[in-house]
Amino acid sequence: MLIVQKFGGSSVANAERVFNVAKRIIETYDKGNDVVVVLSAQGDTTDDLLAKAAEINENASKRELDMLLSTGEQQSVALMAMAIQKLGRNAISLNAAQVGIESTSTYSNAKIKRICTERIQNELDRKNIVIVTGFQGINKYDDVTTLGRGGSDTSAVALASVLHADLCEIYTDVDGVYTADPRIVKDAQKLNEISYDEMLELASLGAKVLHNRSVEMAKKYNINLVVRSSLTREEGTIVKEECKMEKMLISGVASDKDIARISVIGIKNEPGKAFEIFSLMARERISVDIILQSIGRNNTKDISFTVHKADLKQAIAVLEANKERLKVDEIVFTDDVAKLSIVGAGMATNTGVASLMFEALFDAGININMISTSEIKISVLIDEKDVEAATIAVHDKFRIAHLSMKA
Amino acid sequence: MLIVQKFGGSSVANAERVFNVAKRIIETYDKGNDVVVVLSAQGDTTDDLLAKAAEINENASKRELDMLLSTGEQQSVALMAMAIQKLGRNAISLNAAQVGIESTSTYSNAKIKRICTERIQNELDRKNIVIVTGFQGINKYDDVTTLGRGGSDTSAVALASVLHADLCEIYTDVDGVYTADPRIVKDAQKLNEISYDEMLELASLGAKVLHNRSVEMAKKYNINLVVRSSLTREEGTIVKEECKMEKMLISGVASDKDIARISVIGIKNEPGKAFEIFSLMARERISVDIILQSIGRNNTKDISFTVHKADLKQAIAVLEANKERLKVDEIVFTDDVAKLSIVGAGMATNTGVASLMFEALFDAGININMISTSEIKISVLIDEKDVEAATIAVHDKFRIAHLSMKA
Repeated sequence: MLIVQKFGGSSVANAERVFNVAKRIIETYDKGNDVVVVLSAQGDTTDDLLAKAAEINENASKRELDMLLSTGEQQSVALMAMAIQKLGRNAISLNAAQVGIESTSTYSNAKIKRICTERIQNELDRKNIVIVTGFQGINKYDDVTTLGRGGSDTSAVALASVLHADLCEIYTDVDGVYTADPRIVKDAQKLNEISYDEMLELASLGAKVLHNRSVEMAKKYNINLVVRSSLTREEGTIVKEECKMEKMLISGVASDKDIARISVIGIKNEPGKAFEIFSLMARERISVDIILQSIGRNNTKDISFTVHKADLKQAIAVLEANKERLKVDEIVFTDDVAKLSIVGAGMATNTGVASLMFEALFDAGININMISTSEIKISVLIDEKDVEAATIAVHDKFRIAHLSMKA
Repeated sequence: MLIVQKFGGSSVANAERVFNVAKRIIETYDKGNDVVVVLSAQGDTTDDLLAKAAEINENASKRELDMLLSTGEQQSVALMAMAIQKLGRNAISLNAAQVGIESTSTYSNAKIKRICTERIQNELDRKNIVIVTGFQGINKYDDVTTLGRGGSDTSAVALASVLHADLCEIYTDVDGVYTADPRIVKDAQKLNEISYDEMLELASLGAKVLHNRSVEMAKKYNINLVVRSSLTREEGTIVKEECKMEKMLISGVASDKDIARISVIGIKNEPGKAFEIFSLMARERISVDIILQSIGRNNTKDISFTVHKADLKQAIAVLEANKERLKVDEIVFTDDVAKLSIVGAGMATNTGVASLMFEALFDAGININMISTSEIKISVLIDEKDVEAATIAVHDKFRIAHLSMKA
């Protein structure tokens, strides 16, 4: 079998953990498998490098940031190769340029376009364990790019796809995908299986187990994905197309504190005004999530929407710069908000799910600011301070743990 | 003018120093010059990375070590580009793969074979200050190599050569080339000029201002080289083909503590034995410096030679493994030695220089272990503890400071 294994930054944070992971990789290799490993930067390396950059230039060009950040992964792959060699097996580290991981040009948020398999295949033929830098690519200018948040998961799934791997294992510091964050909800249950679509909603809603782009890619190329712990021998959660859980009402509760709300108040009631606001955001490459439009005073409209906390400053700057042209009265914002979501394939065929959720929040005395729904998820915007209480209340209401165990 | 500037690791050790260097670079750029900058890794980065590697695998493969170490320079070039951008000028960082610095395959001690100028030239045409990683190359396998000690100087001179630069400035933490280490000899004098040959001897004898490979290359391609301080506005020392100092007896005293002595005792007096020993060293890529052969007891020979301290362990291991075949009685070694050398183009036409040096050492009560001479230098091996006293004694004897001021 050809197996791609991805380990996150905390799994390789120090020499001891590097050896633990090396042993785990060797176990798989010694069973006769070809093994390709994808690594993130060690522990806090990326944050340390970002701090170094901020000390020099708070608005550093994204090209140079990527050049800087990509060194973190290069260090961890070299160290891992050394550890595996120390344990008596053949290993070789490769960065994105050496593999040929071609990406789009957008620095700090590039997308993988094409991966050359020749070098990896040659190294596998020589019975090397191949250790590849996650999170990075090379664009058409030969410049280093990074893939944005959760990019190493995407690297692993993309490699699994082009190499026609039999399995892609994502190792993390949790046992698998849970019905809610087990640090908040004590009786949260680990799911044995989850569908790509549900995982996709959970991932994009803030469950930090897998990045949504990696799940999208796994769905597109039908990659067998397993999320499991690098610390235990637990089986983990299998993410795949079909799964037995269709009867479950909801498969999980997720929350995301990393968002901010912007309200544009008193927009003149003319066609195209909403379009203008969101095309401004698109031009700045700012992702907009929940959008809500309401009627304001004197024949005006109010539009509220959420963005990532990191993008708030830039979004406000752009809006203020265009205030005159947009003909708006006021722009207000807060980053003291969080998004709470429930996800489940069963939701589409069950009425009353939304009202059950709202009831749970009402009973807990939690105020809802905004609401957004899709086929298989419901998201609400609440105050950041309420996140934990809300998660517990909603999880209890649906008795997700109980349902999960029956599935 | 096209100017190549090289800054060492201590010049870019923290954000403040990075900005100081950035300002210096911008001064040159703002005068209308094209500027290519070569940087080493920040401060102790390389040592820190070596320590990390040693913690995982003391005998890490050199390929993986190079992969690891090369990240240090990539970080400093990215940070420098950010600093220059912060100061309002255009800059771009490039690593060896992006420039196309092709090297031999020997990891940890590669030599530059060819440099593509296209990318750098394009960036200069766009009025970018181009910041290039020193110390590294890419071999025919697309793998990262490092150029060995002092490699960043070599990178700078090689770039100056292929780009037909008008000047190559090596910035360091001293004002220029001195007649002796000014930390040891208080009246040591800075030289305004020195010839390539004298600099070459000084460099290979342990004066750490410039690496000998970079001087060799500068001589070969007739590059105008200037050694100057990144901290002051002093003029520095010009290294060039012809210079006014021919009348000086000796131009400098240099010492090197980074050596070890090996003695192979009781070699059977057969032809080819010395050749066998040194071909063993060559096969292990261990550089041998001073060699001395003497007659031993019972029709045997003793051969002593010096190697870098870092190579001692490996050299002894190889000799011990071949002891039987070499038919030797005993292999002894010490790393408690140092080499003291005097260099001067005037020496070739002056008799009595060697005896003056020996007299100075005798007067200071310093024992000489081995002697080696060339056209323009004399080296002696002494005990490591005597280095400072010997340097002062020899410098005084030749009144180098005085002669230098007359030149």
